[in-house]
Amino acid sequence: MKFLLLATTLTLTLGAQAQRPVYLDETKPVEQRVEDALKRMTLDEKIAVIHAQSKFSSAGVKRLGFTDFWTDDGPHGVRPDVLWDEWEQAGQTNDSCVAFPALTCLAATWNPTMARLYGHSLGEEALYRGKDMILGPGVNIYRTPLGGRNFEYMGEDPYLAGRMVVPYVQGLQANGVAACVKHYALNNDEEYRHQVNVVVSDRALHEIYLPAFKAAVIEGKVWGIMGAYNLYKDQHNCHNAILLNQILKRDWAFDGVVVSDWGGCHDTDQAVRNGLDMEFGTWTDGLTMGKTNAYSSYYLADAYKRAIREGRYTERELDDKVRRVLRLFYRTTMNRQRPIGFLCSEAHYDAARKIGNEGIVLLKNRQNVLPIDTLTARNILVVGENAVKMMTVGGGSSSLKVQRELSPLDGLRATLAPRGVNIVWERGYVGDTNGSFNGVTSGQDLSESRTPDRLVADAVSKARKADYVVFFGGLNKSDYQDCEGHDRKEYGLPYGQDRLIEALAKANRNLIVVNISGNAVAMPWADRVNAIVQGWYLGSETGHCLADVLTGRVNPSGKLPFTWPRTLDDVPAHRLGTYPGTWRPDHKIIDEEYKEGLYVGYRGVDRYKTRPLFAFGHGLSYTSFRISNLRVDKTTMTHDGKLTFTVNVANTGKREGAEVIQLYISDLQSSLPRPVKELKAFMKVSLRPGESRDVTLTIDNAALSFYDDSRGVWTSEPGDFEALVGNTSDKPNLKVRFKLTDGLH
Amino acid sequence: MKFLLLATTLTLTLGAQAQRPVYLDETKPVEQRVEDALKRMTLDEKIAVIHAQSKFSSAGVKRLGFTDFWTDDGPHGVRPDVLWDEWEQAGQTNDSCVAFPALTCLAATWNPTMARLYGHSLGEEALYRGKDMILGPGVNIYRTPLGGRNFEYMGEDPYLAGRMVVPYVQGLQANGVAACVKHYALNNDEEYRHQVNVVVSDRALHEIYLPAFKAAVIEGKVWGIMGAYNLYKDQHNCHNAILLNQILKRDWAFDGVVVSDWGGCHDTDQAVRNGLDMEFGTWTDGLTMGKTNAYSSYYLADAYKRAIREGRYTERELDDKVRRVLRLFYRTTMNRQRPIGFLCSEAHYDAARKIGNEGIVLLKNRQNVLPIDTLTARNILVVGENAVKMMTVGGGSSSLKVQRELSPLDGLRATLAPRGVNIVWERGYVGDTNGSFNGVTSGQDLSESRTPDRLVADAVSKARKADYVVFFGGLNKSDYQDCEGHDRKEYGLPYGQDRLIEALAKANRNLIVVNISGNAVAMPWADRVNAIVQGWYLGSETGHCLADVLTGRVNPSGKLPFTWPRTLDDVPAHRLGTYPGTWRPDHKIIDEEYKEGLYVGYRGVDRYKTRPLFAFGHGLSYTSFRISNLRVDKTTMTHDGKLTFTVNVANTGKREGAEVIQLYISDLQSSLPRPVKELKAFMKVSLRPGESRDVTLTIDNAALSFYDDSRGVWTSEPGDFEALVGNTSDKPNLKVRFKLTDGLH
Repeated sequence: MKFLLLATTLTLTLGAQAQRPVYLDETKPVEQRVEDALKRMTLDEKIAVIHAQSKFSSAGVKRLGFTDFWTDDGPHGVRPDVLWDEWEQAGQTNDSCVAFPALTCLAATWNPTMARLYGHSLGEEALYRGKDMILGPGVNIYRTPLGGRNFEYMGEDPYLAGRMVVPYVQGLQANGVAACVKHYALNNDEEYRHQVNVVVSDRALHEIYLPAFKAAVIEGKVWGIMGAYNLYKDQHNCHNAILLNQILKRDWAFDGVVVSDWGGCHDTDQAVRNGLDMEFGTWTDGLTMGKTNAYSSYYLADAYKRAIREGRYTERELDDKVRRVLRLFYRTTMNRQRPIGFLCSEAHYDAARKIGNEGIVLLKNRQNVLPIDTLTARNILVVGENAVKMMTVGGGSSSLKVQRELSPLDGLRATLAPRGVNIVWERGYVGDTNGSFNGVTSGQDLSESRTPDRLVADAVSKARKADYVVFFGGLNKSDYQDCEGHDRKEYGLPYGQDRLIEALAKANRNLIVVNISGNAVAMPWADRVNAIVQGWYLGSETGHCLADVLTGRVNPSGKLPFTWPRTLDDVPAHRLGTYPGTWRPDHKIIDEEYKEGLYVGYRGVDRYKTRPLFAFGHGLSYTSFRISNLRVDKTTMTHDGKLTFTVNVANTGKREGAEVIQLYISDLQSSLPRPVKELKAFMKVSLRPGESRDVTLTIDNAALSFYDDSRGVWTSEPGDFEALVGNTSDKPNLKVRFKLTDGLH
Repeated sequence: MKFLLLATTLTLTLGAQAQRPVYLDETKPVEQRVEDALKRMTLDEKIAVIHAQSKFSSAGVKRLGFTDFWTDDGPHGVRPDVLWDEWEQAGQTNDSCVAFPALTCLAATWNPTMARLYGHSLGEEALYRGKDMILGPGVNIYRTPLGGRNFEYMGEDPYLAGRMVVPYVQGLQANGVAACVKHYALNNDEEYRHQVNVVVSDRALHEIYLPAFKAAVIEGKVWGIMGAYNLYKDQHNCHNAILLNQILKRDWAFDGVVVSDWGGCHDTDQAVRNGLDMEFGTWTDGLTMGKTNAYSSYYLADAYKRAIREGRYTERELDDKVRRVLRLFYRTTMNRQRPIGFLCSEAHYDAARKIGNEGIVLLKNRQNVLPIDTLTARNILVVGENAVKMMTVGGGSSSLKVQRELSPLDGLRATLAPRGVNIVWERGYVGDTNGSFNGVTSGQDLSESRTPDRLVADAVSKARKADYVVFFGGLNKSDYQDCEGHDRKEYGLPYGQDRLIEALAKANRNLIVVNISGNAVAMPWADRVNAIVQGWYLGSETGHCLADVLTGRVNPSGKLPFTWPRTLDDVPAHRLGTYPGTWRPDHKIIDEEYKEGLYVGYRGVDRYKTRPLFAFGHGLSYTSFRISNLRVDKTTMTHDGKLTFTVNVANTGKREGAEVIQLYISDLQSSLPRPVKELKAFMKVSLRPGESRDVTLTIDNAALSFYDDSRGVWTSEPGDFEALVGNTSDKPNLKVRFKLTDGLH
C-alpha cells in the first residue's frame, strides 16, 4: 500500500517545464520532434488529427500541447467564422477583414513582388484571426472562359502562374500560416466538378496543368495541397494514386499535408493508400451540432481506426499521415517564432490598393479617352449596377465579410467631387437580385422596377450631355457568373448589357467601359467603344483602385493573364467540343477529354491561328514604350548553363509608367510537337518619362524542356531555339536565335 | 498628380517587420510600449478595448496587432465555450476540460504548494483553450454556511485565504494567463447579491474582508480584479470609489485591470470615475446575435464616447483604463514567451487527484472505522445519490463540461472490485431532478419513483448485512444548494437525509458518512455516526480521491478552512440577526449590517464561546501526531524584526501522514478590542511513522497588527503577545509569550 508523500518543502517541478521532452524541445530538429511526438500518441489521437472535428478545424493533441488546427477560406481574404458544425455564420463582430483583389487580378500585375505582398498581408490577417492554414491560392489553369471559378485562379499560363504562386506562398507562410495550394489537379471547370473524370495527355498534364503546383511545392515549399473534387483516371483526386503518391509525394518530394477539398474524400481504402492526409468535409452524417461523434463517420475516422484494429492495415500509412500533420503543427501552431498578426491595418489596405492598381488592364484606349481629363470634365455619368454592387459577397467559398468595400461609384466620387466634377449614376440594366448592394452608397433605389427599355433610355439621355460616360458592367458573384459550383452558361454579358453599351457608345464618344469580371466576356461592341478597362474583382479598395486608374493618378500596367477570345469557338476546348464532356451511361461520371492537349490559351491561338480580341500579355499604358536592341550573352548553351537576354526599354511618352517585358521561347526543331512559343521569363519595369533601361532576362534548361511522355521524363533536345521578346504575346517582335548544344535526357 | 512607383527591383519591406515600432519592440520596457501603443490608438479603439464585444471577449486593436482578449470562467476548470452573443453552448467538441476540486477543498489542503499546482495546471488548460484570463479565484470570506457560493471560495480566515491565493495566482499567471480575483469585495452571500448594501466597520473590512485580496495584489501581483455585484456605502462595487480608487489602486498600487462582474456595471459616470476598467455583461440591449452594435449600449461604450466627444470628460480617465488594458495585453496575449498549454493531460488529472487527496477532511473516526479494511471487507453498501451524481455540472458560472468525472461509487468499485469486494448501491433518498447524473455508471434507474420510506427501508435492510455502509450525501449544485445566485434556505441537509442517516447508523456501526458539499451542514446525528468525512466537490477525480482516502491508500490530511457550527444560531451573522439584512422602503436596496464585526468564524467562536461541531483547522489522520516543545528564538521583537517559533512534531502512529501546524497570535493588551486569537502562520509537514521533526514558523510585525479605524492605518502596539500552536483552532495547546518593544504607527 502506497502512502501519501507531500512535497511541501520541495520546490514544485511544474508540468513539462522541468524536463522538456524532445517533442517540445525547440533546440531539437523538427524531424526528431515529430518522431518523439508520434511515439507518444495513441491510436485515437493519431486518427483524431487526420480528419475534421468541425467545419474548419481538426483536432490537436490536447494532452501533449498540440493545439487544434484551424483552416479557413480563402484566397482573397479570411472568411468570416461559421458555427462549429453549421455553415451559418457565427455572428461574431471580430471577423471582418480586408478583401484583396481576386487572384486573376494579382496574376495580371505580372509582378511577383505584388504576389509576395499579397501573401504576406493575407497571412497577417489569417494569423490575427487565429487561422493556421489558408485554403488557397488556386492555380488551376484557365482553360475556358466559362469556368465559374477562374476569378480565383492565376490565368492560363503555367509559367506565369508558377512565378506568382511561389512568392504568394512564401509571403503567406512567412507568418507561420500554411498555404494550401488548390485544387490539385485538373479542376478546370465547375459545372460537374464532382463527376468530371478528366482525360488528358501526359504531356498536357505535366506541361500545362501541373507546373504551377510543382513550383509551389519545390520552390515555394508549400505546406499544404488541396485535392480537387474531380477525377483523373477514374480516381477522385483527393485520393489519387498517380497525382498524390507518384507525382506529388514521390517525384516532387512533397513533405506537407494533402487536404481533401470539403467532402472530396469518398473512400477509406483509397484515402488510406493514395496519399490523403487530412479529411475535411461539409457533411456530418446528419447529426446535429455539438454531437461529439459528428465527424466520426468520416472516411479517415472510425472506419479507418476499426480497420487498423482489425488488422486490415498496419499503422504504417497512418504514421506517414500523422508525421505530415505533426510537421505542419511545428510549422504553424507550434512555431513559437510566428510573427504578430494584424487585421484591417492601413498596410493591408495599402497592399490591396497597390495590387489592384497594378492589376487593372487597360484593354483599349482609342483617341486617348483615358485618363479622364479632370481639368475639363464637369459632368460624368456613371452607368451600371456594378458601379454600386458589393462584389466581396458571393462567389462561393471565397465570399467575405469585409470591414469596408468602396464601390466604383464612391471611389470616383471621392476622387472627383472635391475637384468640382458632378457625378450622376444611372442603373442602366437589372442584374440578379440575389446579390448584395451598397444600397446606401448608390443614392438610388435599386429595387425600383423600371423596365430595361426605360433604364437604357434614361442612361442614354443623360449620356448625351455628359463629358464622360463610365459604364461599370460585366459579371458578378451570383450563381452561373463568377461563382464556385457552376460554370457560366454563355460567353456573352448577361442582363442585356450589350444593347446598353451599344446605345451608350452611340450617345457619347467618351464612353469608358469598365468590365468587372474574373473572366473574358464577349464584346461584340468592342470596335465601337473607345476605351475598355478590365477591372476584375478588386476587393475592399475597388473604388480607389479604379478611380486611381481612370483619373490617371495611377498609370495602368496590368497585362492579361489569359487570352481574350472573340467568341467561344475561338477557345480550343470549345472549338473541339470537349466541354463539358460526355456522360457515361450510368450518368454518374462525365468524361471530359482535353483534346486540345497543350494548346490552351495563346498556345491555341498560335496553333489554330485564331485572332483573339485581346492577347495574353496584352495591356496598355498612358505612356508609350519602345523596346529595342535585344541581345543574348552567347548563342549556344548547354543543359547545365544559362542564357541571359538583354533588351532596352524606353519610356517614350510623357508619364511615368511600367511595362512588362515578356520573353517567349520557340523550339525550332523538336522530336515531339511543341507550341509555337511559350512564356519563359518576364520582368516588370518602371520608367520615368524619357528614361530608358536595359532589362535582363535569364533562362536555363527548364525553359527549353518538354515532357517526353514516352519515357515519362522532362527532357531538352539539342538544336535551334528562338527567343521572342515583346510586351504582349501577339507581338513579341524582337527575336534572337540560339542553340542548345546538348540536351538533358 | 502623383504617378505610380513600382518597387520591382527593390527588396520589399514587409509590414511592421522592417521598422518595428516601439509598441511591438520586445526589447523596450513594457511601460514605454504601453505609451507608444496608447498614442497610436483612436478614440474608437480606446473605447473598444474597455468593454465586452461578446459574452466573454473584448476587442483587441486589430490594425496594431493586439488580438482580442478572451476571458472565461471559472475557478475550478475552464468553462465550455458559448456562442458569440448567447449563453447557449457553442456545441464544440474541443472544450472539455479537467475539473479540479472546488476552492474550498483547495483551502482545506492548507498547502500553498497545492495552490500553486492548481493555478499552474488550470492556467495550462486555459492557455490551451485560448483563454487569456480566468475569472477567479474567489476569496470572499465564508461568513454564513448558507452562502450559495462558499464552495468557490477559500474559507473563513483572511490569512489562510491569503496564503492560498498568492501561489494560485502566481501559478496561473506563470502561463501568461491572467487571474481575476473575485468578487471584490464584501460579496459574502448570494441571495440578494444585486441589491445588498453591506454595512461594515472599517476594521472588519480591512482585517477580515480585504486581506486576501490585498495579498493577491501585493504578493501575488495579480493582473485582474473583478468587482462584486453588491454595494458598499451605497455604491456598486464595480464602480466604488473607496474600494477601487482609494484602497485597490491608490493604497495597494494595483496596476492591473478592474473587470466588472457580468452586468455589474450600472452607471457611466461612476464607471468612468470610480476605477472600473473593463465592462462585461450578460445582456446586450435586446439585440440579436451578430449585430455589430450589440455591446454599444454598454456604460463604457457609446455613452462614454459620446460624453468625451461632448467634452464632458477629457481622455484622462480613459487613458488610465486603456493603459491598464494594454499592460494586460503585454502580460498575456502579447507575451511571446508564454509557455505551451495542455488540456486534459495526465499531469492535470494527477494534480486534481493530489489536491483532492490532500483536501478531504476526516472529521470523525471513532473506533477507527476508517480506513476500510480491504482485507476483511467482503460486502460494502454504498448509499446516496451523491455517490453517482455528476457534480461538475451546475452551480452557476463554475459549471463545466468535463472530459470525464469519476463518481464516488465508480471510484470505490475501481479500487475495491479487483480485491473481490462486492459493492452494492442504494439510492436512499430522492434529490432534485434538475441535476445531471452519471446514469450509466449507477447501474440503477434514478427516475424510478420509489417512496422515500421504501428507499430508506431498502437501504437499511441491505445495510444490516454489509461490512461497511458508505453514505454519500450532502448538498449538490442545484439552485438553493451550493450554487451561484441564491443562498441555501436552511442549514440542515435536504431530501430527508438526516432520517436516512439515523436509520443507517442504527443498522450498522461501520457507517461512514461522506458529506459532499462546499458548506457546513447540520449534523444532528453526528454523535451516532462513527466516521464522518468531508468530501467537498472534487471534480474529475472525485471517485479516485475519495476511494484513496476511504481505503487508506491516502492518509487524510485536510483541515477545515471554516468553522463547522452545530446550529445556525452559533454563527455570529445569524445569532445577531444580520442576515439577509433589511429592505429599504423602496425595496430596491437591502442593507446588511455586519454587526458581528471582526468576529467571523473561529473569532466568533472565541468571542461568543460557542462550541462548534468541528473547529476551524480541525482534521484527523489515520496516524497520530505529538506536537511538543514550542520554542521561540527570542522573547522580544521590534516592529521591523521577526520571530521564529520552533515546535517538534512526531508521527506517533503506524502510517505515514501529514499534519498542519497552526500558529495563532493573541494580543494580550490592546487599545482596541481584538479577537482572542488569529491564525498567523501554518505549515503542513509529512512524516513517516516514528519520524519527528522540528518545524519553524516565522512571523513579523504584520502578524501583530490591526487596523486602527480612527486613523485609517494598520498599526501594531507595544506590549505582550502570546503565540498558540497546535493542529486545530480549538486546541492550540502550546503557548509562548513574547513582547513587542515598539510599534508601527
